[in-house]
Amino acid sequence: MAIQANHSQNIEWVLAQLEHVAQFGQDKSGVTRLAFSKADHQARQFITELMQEIGLTIHTDTIGNIIGRYEPEGSQSHLPAVMTGSHLDTVPSGGKYDGVLGVLCGLAAVKALKARGDIKHPLEVVVFAAEESSRFNFATIGSKAMAGLANVHSWKRIKDQEGISLASELVALGLEIEHVGSAARSNNSIKGFLELHIEQGPILEQGRVSIGIVDKVSSPTKLKITVTGIPGHSGGTPMEDRQDALVSAAMIVLAVKNISAEYDYQGAVATVTILRTYPGVISVIPGEVEMWVDIRGTEHESIIDILQEIKDAVSTIADDNDTPVAIEVLSSEKPIILDQTINETIETVCQKLKLTSLRLDSRAGHDAMNIAHIAPTGLIFIPCKEGISHNGSEYVETEAIAAGLEVLTETLYQLAK
Amino acid sequence: MAIQANHSQNIEWVLAQLEHVAQFGQDKSGVTRLAFSKADHQARQFITELMQEIGLTIHTDTIGNIIGRYEPEGSQSHLPAVMTGSHLDTVPSGGKYDGVLGVLCGLAAVKALKARGDIKHPLEVVVFAAEESSRFNFATIGSKAMAGLANVHSWKRIKDQEGISLASELVALGLEIEHVGSAARSNNSIKGFLELHIEQGPILEQGRVSIGIVDKVSSPTKLKITVTGIPGHSGGTPMEDRQDALVSAAMIVLAVKNISAEYDYQGAVATVTILRTYPGVISVIPGEVEMWVDIRGTEHESIIDILQEIKDAVSTIADDNDTPVAIEVLSSEKPIILDQTINETIETVCQKLKLTSLRLDSRAGHDAMNIAHIAPTGLIFIPCKEGISHNGSEYVETEAIAAGLEVLTETLYQLAK
Repeated sequence: MAIQANHSQNIEWVLAQLEHVAQFGQDKSGVTRLAFSKADHQARQFITELMQEIGLTIHTDTIGNIIGRYEPEGSQSHLPAVMTGSHLDTVPSGGKYDGVLGVLCGLAAVKALKARGDIKHPLEVVVFAAEESSRFNFATIGSKAMAGLANVHSWKRIKDQEGISLASELVALGLEIEHVGSAARSNNSIKGFLELHIEQGPILEQGRVSIGIVDKVSSPTKLKITVTGIPGHSGGTPMEDRQDALVSAAMIVLAVKNISAEYDYQGAVATVTILRTYPGVISVIPGEVEMWVDIRGTEHESIIDILQEIKDAVSTIADDNDTPVAIEVLSSEKPIILDQTINETIETVCQKLKLTSLRLDSRAGHDAMNIAHIAPTGLIFIPCKEGISHNGSEYVETEAIAAGLEVLTETLYQLAK
Repeated sequence: MAIQANHSQNIEWVLAQLEHVAQFGQDKSGVTRLAFSKADHQARQFITELMQEIGLTIHTDTIGNIIGRYEPEGSQSHLPAVMTGSHLDTVPSGGKYDGVLGVLCGLAAVKALKARGDIKHPLEVVVFAAEESSRFNFATIGSKAMAGLANVHSWKRIKDQEGISLASELVALGLEIEHVGSAARSNNSIKGFLELHIEQGPILEQGRVSIGIVDKVSSPTKLKITVTGIPGHSGGTPMEDRQDALVSAAMIVLAVKNISAEYDYQGAVATVTILRTYPGVISVIPGEVEMWVDIRGTEHESIIDILQEIKDAVSTIADDNDTPVAIEVLSSEKPIILDQTINETIETVCQKLKLTSLRLDSRAGHDAMNIAHIAPTGLIFIPCKEGISHNGSEYVETEAIAAGLEVLTETLYQLAK
């Protein structure tokens, strides 16, 4: 009964902190907390204070990941830590659960485990820096660095759309881009990593399942497509004399959509997410269009097939319309397989707690996919309403949060006891 | 022979000044001289100096039109002026002939007529301010004001994409938006207006005709279309759950193109010239798309029919994809019929000069369409290479310029003698 009462209090605590964090960057259509923005700094400061209240030892690494560590009394500090966490940054007008929930439930779990005692391994809650690609067009920066995947040479060139560099944002945190390599954790410093996250898709809700256990995480393949037409007067130029870059781009958007629909059931999707017209003047036929394509899939072959089909379609459209098209592959990573032993532990915990669970794949990228390179890693999903995420109307039921927190706490316990 | 030699010298003079003006705003792909930009001010200053050299009396009106006036010795200054001119501003990466040629040939014509003598009416060469819609999304501002078509109340709200207002640019010229109404010329102050301009279409070149005499000028109908979808995670959201605003927008681009192709032979075209995706983030399905459509035609019925067909197509696309679409008509003006007596004079001049001419309609808007409201107006076209304009590769043959200058000079003489 005491534990049950504590669990209720912990859920209340998570819900209250969620509302608090949502104020940082709140706008009329959602939460806008881009990586290293003022709102992100406010949220990071707030979480740091929560970590202090809980009695964690706080350390910020060289990429700006915040790590709160709890060492059980009498435990040996050289034992590998059991780690959990997620991110605080959001997309523009995003939701208030994506990322934050994993950080707050991590803190609540550590609070509960501190109270319970019987823990041998140190526990760590981490706030990963710059998970979303929205600001720097580059995702999961903090967890990449922790996993030893940072490339200082290329990361020095990372800039946002206003030309502000990642390096200069690190300076604002008292950090130097030259030293991001030092954020890498050794393989034997982490016993296991768990990330709790909302699904950002409709499978759990539609199946009325409480807990998703992720087998594979898709890594995005990102393309930039540039269509070159001929700008001309939009009144004077007859239709037959036009090489309108936007007409070709529109055909490409629909081709990508049709190809995506074909592969959706094989676990892969492709989306044209950004399109820009040049010169962008009302009286000029578009002479150039830039478009960005996001391809996600948990089967590497499907991604390769989609990419090939897009290339074929684009080539035909370019030829038919006499508008040359260039495709640049900005990033292409293989899907990541998560740890099966940890997944079995999560499954057993769900059975014990009488919660339904389902193995599934994640088409969204997560910090967990990077940490999987250096530690046995599990990714726990809970359902979100209608699968909607990256949107201000993102919503998660309190029961879903309660189930997630319970599973996270119990699985951390199994790993750390 | 003396006149012939003068004509050659005048053409050389026009070509030299053209190159000079092209330096103001020259970039690697063309000339970028947006209205009231630094480059535009440089060009305006240069033309003002040319007017001084020629001995014209210079006056800048309350919207920033520069008017250089020549009063023949012994003439009565109260007689209505015969006016010619065009604009100096360009689209981004535009050509070096569009607009400028009409100003320079106007100056060359006045030089020639001064030398010839035998002129009764004052002659005026005008540089119309802000003809292109590129900067303020609003075209032919200077000539509208001169024609008494300024609306101070709505013009106060005109801003460029960076939020800089037309009003503040006028202040930089020492002018006040409150007084733009004073730029209006009385009906009886102008005996006739002639504008020389490149065709910006392929008809004259294809027909090997030297001079186009414009019967009607299309006024653009401009639409803003906003497509509303649902932003969502571009990895997590299955295809069947998507309401992707860009997919609907792509269908609209193709529908507009198909409708346009159908009406092209009736003298009307429609073009989606600008398209913007929101939130414009690589991991988010587009939740909103804004697009601008430019409809041009010389038959008002065709424009109305095109507009209706676009509305019908958009409505079907919106329903099919569950993405609501709003259409806002930003401007819709009737095509303008130019003065038939002046056109007959131009035709007679062409016959006399043994130059081929063709009556045609203009699908591009011009300052002449506004001045037609207050004075008998003619618009003289000369061919440009492949009809290409609003593009850095815009090119006009020297013989075409020579023919245009000769016709302009002689027609001005017929009106002013």
